[in-house]
Amino acid sequence: MAATPVWSVDPRTGKQREQVAVEATSREVDEAVRAAHAARGALADAVVRAAFLRTAADLLDESAAHVVEAADAETALGPGRLTGEVARTTGQLRAFADAVDEGAYLDVRIDRADPALTPPRPELRRYKVPLGVVAVYAASNFPLAFSVPGGDTASALAAGCPVVVKAHPDHPATSELCASLLRRAAVAAGLPPEVVAVVHGFDAGLELVRHPLVTAAGFTGSIRGGRALFDAAAARPVPIPFHGELGSLNPVVVTPAAAAERAEEIGAGLAASVTLGVGQFCVKPGLVLVPEGADGDRVTGALTKALGETEPGVLLDHRMRENFIAGVSERAALAAVTAPVTPGSGGEHTVGAGYLTVPARALVEGTDGGAASGSSGHELLLEECFGPVTVVVRYADQGEAAAVLGLLSGNLSATLHLSAAETEGGAGPAAELIAQVTTLAGRVVVNGWPTGVAVAPAQHHGGPYPAATSHSTSVGGTAIERWLRPVAYQSVPDALLPPELREANPLGLPRRVTP
Amino acid sequence: MAATPVWSVDPRTGKQREQVAVEATSREVDEAVRAAHAARGALADAVVRAAFLRTAADLLDESAAHVVEAADAETALGPGRLTGEVARTTGQLRAFADAVDEGAYLDVRIDRADPALTPPRPELRRYKVPLGVVAVYAASNFPLAFSVPGGDTASALAAGCPVVVKAHPDHPATSELCASLLRRAAVAAGLPPEVVAVVHGFDAGLELVRHPLVTAAGFTGSIRGGRALFDAAAARPVPIPFHGELGSLNPVVVTPAAAAERAEEIGAGLAASVTLGVGQFCVKPGLVLVPEGADGDRVTGALTKALGETEPGVLLDHRMRENFIAGVSERAALAAVTAPVTPGSGGEHTVGAGYLTVPARALVEGTDGGAASGSSGHELLLEECFGPVTVVVRYADQGEAAAVLGLLSGNLSATLHLSAAETEGGAGPAAELIAQVTTLAGRVVVNGWPTGVAVAPAQHHGGPYPAATSHSTSVGGTAIERWLRPVAYQSVPDALLPPELREANPLGLPRRVTP
Repeated sequence: MAATPVWSVDPRTGKQREQVAVEATSREVDEAVRAAHAARGALADAVVRAAFLRTAADLLDESAAHVVEAADAETALGPGRLTGEVARTTGQLRAFADAVDEGAYLDVRIDRADPALTPPRPELRRYKVPLGVVAVYAASNFPLAFSVPGGDTASALAAGCPVVVKAHPDHPATSELCASLLRRAAVAAGLPPEVVAVVHGFDAGLELVRHPLVTAAGFTGSIRGGRALFDAAAARPVPIPFHGELGSLNPVVVTPAAAAERAEEIGAGLAASVTLGVGQFCVKPGLVLVPEGADGDRVTGALTKALGETEPGVLLDHRMRENFIAGVSERAALAAVTAPVTPGSGGEHTVGAGYLTVPARALVEGTDGGAASGSSGHELLLEECFGPVTVVVRYADQGEAAAVLGLLSGNLSATLHLSAAETEGGAGPAAELIAQVTTLAGRVVVNGWPTGVAVAPAQHHGGPYPAATSHSTSVGGTAIERWLRPVAYQSVPDALLPPELREANPLGLPRRVTP
Repeated sequence: MAATPVWSVDPRTGKQREQVAVEATSREVDEAVRAAHAARGALADAVVRAAFLRTAADLLDESAAHVVEAADAETALGPGRLTGEVARTTGQLRAFADAVDEGAYLDVRIDRADPALTPPRPELRRYKVPLGVVAVYAASNFPLAFSVPGGDTASALAAGCPVVVKAHPDHPATSELCASLLRRAAVAAGLPPEVVAVVHGFDAGLELVRHPLVTAAGFTGSIRGGRALFDAAAARPVPIPFHGELGSLNPVVVTPAAAAERAEEIGAGLAASVTLGVGQFCVKPGLVLVPEGADGDRVTGALTKALGETEPGVLLDHRMRENFIAGVSERAALAAVTAPVTPGSGGEHTVGAGYLTVPARALVEGTDGGAASGSSGHELLLEECFGPVTVVVRYADQGEAAAVLGLLSGNLSATLHLSAAETEGGAGPAAELIAQVTTLAGRVVVNGWPTGVAVAPAQHHGGPYPAATSHSTSVGGTAIERWLRPVAYQSVPDALLPPELREANPLGLPRRVTP
């Protein structure tokens, strides 16, 4: 059987640029996983791992121009955005190197023996060990920060786990380039290059999650693809954790007082957030609750103006463009839905930005959440539509806003726009809204926009299903926790303990000691 | 359809004692879950939760005589063991109350805004919120500490999650009694009694894990039952985490030097650990590697003597007794397996303790791990056999010991018996053994026995599958982490933050701050 070629495609023209690779066969996936597994011991030394991550960051920075050019050619995300993404990616690699140096992620806990207790307590020393080979599924929309050199890879390597990345078909050349840089960095740090591998192909991705030596997976992508892989991970003879980020609507609520105070600023800010990266962010605001009435009209007026002035953009691939155009049409055809700025085809290869609007009553009644028997298909408005479009829901009062929020499943983010007085607490809808959206999302934003997920120790990029398939985060300091498991050592003599747990604490790790 | 009665049965006679309850119908499960869900808000106050847990402990202690009598009547575990289990259970409830007071489990992290960064970092404040209703599946072998008032319940309540327990059919009366005490404690603490409920019945257990308002599950039991529930949890439209402890062989390695040094002590200690609780501990040593030769013979000699002197005991129920007798027979019939002390029927309602032995070579060659094509059924020796029996594997050299360990799947514990010289580190097999068993187990014990799992902050009672279905622990301080998910607040004004995250830190919580 001939190998299936993997092409790099220019989304600006839809034309194949070059053949980059071939899809991995079962045997090739097996070989990559086995080689990664065999290399895992080399990652045991934290000093080497930190050096590896920093060298990888340095090599990416040095090659930034080349990487940006490669990524732009097959994603059309533009040099500005991609240059920023290189910085985000290298910053993330260095942040995980710092986390390795600091060592809090090992969560060392020591209980001293206490023979006076009933029953007597033996000495217990606990830390965390790496799981083994991690499968990473790259995202379409971040060819760097959520792909080969991205957060899943960086956090897994930081934890001491070798990584096999299933490349995204939208940027195979960038994937290969980044993999070669990571492997060069590994060698420079004295590690075998097999600690990072890349495979291409849908079937290879499925083989990967089923491979007996794969111990965990990280995924960023669609609900459909992610759920299929989640199901495969759970159905294994030995199930493995599957940390997937699957999809999010990212609701926004604009209170009447906020609209009264700064309608134009909110409308313009919303337009900018919706169209950032041509609407291809997982935290794009996809459902915006705007009050009925004149102040709300000023919000949508500003949104209409800003979206009307937005240049058409190129989506990551032509299938996405078709899905976007079809998804918008299907939503626009629902009862009571109008399209003040119709998003859609802006040319043979581009799409224009826009938005739809629907009264809250119609949305609630048109879904299973309505009192009427059966729905009229409005659930579709509660599904993510990838691309530069959002749905504005006009609500009459807080009860209606709460009813709409009550229809939603899990989200990566939820955003509130409040007035200055409302931010001061006390009476008013703000506290109730905060409480309600906390149940819906992994991150709550006030008077800002959800796009732009800071890489920071306290970040949480996850949320109730389907935002995430686990309660972990794929961005921020705690993302490393996904790739580790605890082990407790009971009455193990000091000389036989791993250095991380020895009494003298030779690595200077933070630890919680129970005397 | 008539309700299915739930009987309390005396395992000492096999006779029904009394009808305790009826199996819950779908509607009753739904009602219990909805009532628990509706009560969740009442658990939001940490001070109230801690008081509730302490009151529950006090009520259990006050009722200890009654509880022990009820539990002994339907488990035959004996007043001594059960009195100890009450203390373990109430100690555990109080330990989680202390954890609630201390607040580290909220893992508060605060990143200050930094406009000088590229891109500027917004203020982020992260903590953890309770998931919602937790389903707990009680274990047969711990009618208290891993059942209604046990560690899963205590940790879930501590996290702020209402609990619906699926009672174990071996101790329904004890379950009802404990539930009534917990509900009294709830009311005394000002909480609605619906924060804890108990349901009976196999079907009710399955309904529970599938209920849309159930957010997570904790389970202690068999591989077969646990895997079925795990699969149901993963197959839900919205999958939920399933923290199951399914089964463990708990390998023990006795080095030649340790056997030379203290063979009799090891053999007697092994017998005591194997027969503790009539061999019904999940951490019972089920596979023991003993060196060939005279020193190893002294170990097995001491084991033979001690087991021969052990009185027959009553297992938790008659099905278990039949499974035990059949499981021992099936194993004893395998090629190269002998039974120096044949375990089995010790009377109409009791079982005698014993052990089987097999050469390491025969075990390796008799399984898929052997070089020969196909197995001869020796995999069975690598499966847990619940009851007072263990399998002694005689090995010729460290290579054989390593080969046997290489056949094993995940375990709750792994134990090494080393000589005094070996505990001092340096050359010898000890370091390699520690490294190998760390890959196999959640807890590594040296020169002790795995039975007796201390309730302590650094404890880890879990391990690679099938020991556990997740990387969490069901015993110890970090067990609470299973019932929480992180939420990050971005640029949320102080007055709207939960008290846990406010700048002034009114609750005095430990927190990690990034300036």
